[in-house]
Amino acid sequence: MKEKLTIIKVGGKIVEETDTLNRLLSDFSAVPGYKLLVHGGGRSATRIAAQLGIESRMVNGRRITDAETLKVVTMVYGGLVNKNIVAGLQGKGVNAVGLTGADMGVIRSDKRPVKDVDYGFVGDVKEVRADVLVQLIRQGIVPVMAPLTYDGAGGLLNTNADTIAGETAKALSEAFDVTLMYCFEKKGVLHDENDDDSVIPVITPDLFRQYVDEGVIQGGMIPKLENSFSAVEAGVIQVIITSASAIDGKSGTIIKK
Amino acid sequence: MKEKLTIIKVGGKIVEETDTLNRLLSDFSAVPGYKLLVHGGGRSATRIAAQLGIESRMVNGRRITDAETLKVVTMVYGGLVNKNIVAGLQGKGVNAVGLTGADMGVIRSDKRPVKDVDYGFVGDVKEVRADVLVQLIRQGIVPVMAPLTYDGAGGLLNTNADTIAGETAKALSEAFDVTLMYCFEKKGVLHDENDDDSVIPVITPDLFRQYVDEGVIQGGMIPKLENSFSAVEAGVIQVIITSASAIDGKSGTIIKK
Repeated sequence: MKEKLTIIKVGGKIVEETDTLNRLLSDFSAVPGYKLLVHGGGRSATRIAAQLGIESRMVNGRRITDAETLKVVTMVYGGLVNKNIVAGLQGKGVNAVGLTGADMGVIRSDKRPVKDVDYGFVGDVKEVRADVLVQLIRQGIVPVMAPLTYDGAGGLLNTNADTIAGETAKALSEAFDVTLMYCFEKKGVLHDENDDDSVIPVITPDLFRQYVDEGVIQGGMIPKLENSFSAVEAGVIQVIITSASAIDGKSGTIIKK
Repeated sequence: MKEKLTIIKVGGKIVEETDTLNRLLSDFSAVPGYKLLVHGGGRSATRIAAQLGIESRMVNGRRITDAETLKVVTMVYGGLVNKNIVAGLQGKGVNAVGLTGADMGVIRSDKRPVKDVDYGFVGDVKEVRADVLVQLIRQGIVPVMAPLTYDGAGGLLNTNADTIAGETAKALSEAFDVTLMYCFEKKGVLHDENDDDSVIPVITPDLFRQYVDEGVIQGGMIPKLENSFSAVEAGVIQVIITSASAIDGKSGTIIKK
């Protein structure tokens, strides 16, 4: 039987405010066994870009990353957010190491081809070096991954943190029984968007189709769940969609094959 | 006989301009055997702090690091400068990993006590985890170290890059035959400050005292050489003071016991 690994993805809002960050650091440090954290940082990037006089342009929720914006996200994701999390986790006794995709070449990506939109320095994940991550994890080191990947030719690319978490979970599922947790502001996928307690406990592919047909699941939750099913199809044991304050796994929506 | 390790410290000016950075990446990738890079980044920190409306205050060449300045150096040293070097080295086939002192707890420091000056969030190196670095290096991984250390209580501290290079060299000298190279804008320690080609080839403690008495060596070079002698006294094989374009070791001043 494989050992368990918990991969937790937290969005920018949680890691960018002192109170929620401290809570997250405590909760994450209490997660038993092997673990890995993936973080965002978009709000800080937007704020610091604005202070530097750089306009943030988003298309379909994705940041257009020109050369100046790439510098900002490299500073904010790779430096400010990542290293504060790493230092904070060390303070909780978690032996963390902060990584971008360039560090030890852990995540290679391809610059997204220009179709309708030129996203600039944005990368689509091509390969996760599971061997490198497995070796770190088995040594008791906890990777903290920033949403930046390596282009294979000396440069960094901006990559969506949800995607990094999903691809990393898939790549590590050969070595570990992986649980992937996507933390967001709600307690889980809701039956009724106006009732925060109406969490759907389990979604299977059949239930997913049914909920989409009924209009219970709609909008941005559809691609998030499609990504989750893609992860479980690729060998991830389960995906849990929950709030950052529930990473003990006691609530949330479980996505299963 | 121990294996050789070359530790190279480069200042901010070299790593912050595209042309000199590219030259450095090529030269560093050509250095044979085990190696480790320590970088600065002060000029970028000052420039980005100014753009963010944060005044840079220096006392005795050291940056006063208040909470806002710590955020800037975390972004610039740990993110912008460090990750661009790491990605650039990967592009040259060097399997680099970017580290602050918090990552895997490699460099612990103590916040500098307030005497005449309150330097703020500045750390004096207390311990370098040689075991962690040795393990990485023996795996063929090349650490790229930012001038940030870990305070042992969840926080980062700003630490002089020369000091990080010196303390790392000392800590690794039990495991390796360490050569430490300090790269700066001159070709070496000069006999005549107006003649860039008047490089003193070798300085021993006796010669050092003689040159200081004669006024040949003066000013900021005195503490730099004192640090170098401290490193060789602690087991570092040799310290070389040279220009970044001469890290092939073919010129520069060698500091020996």
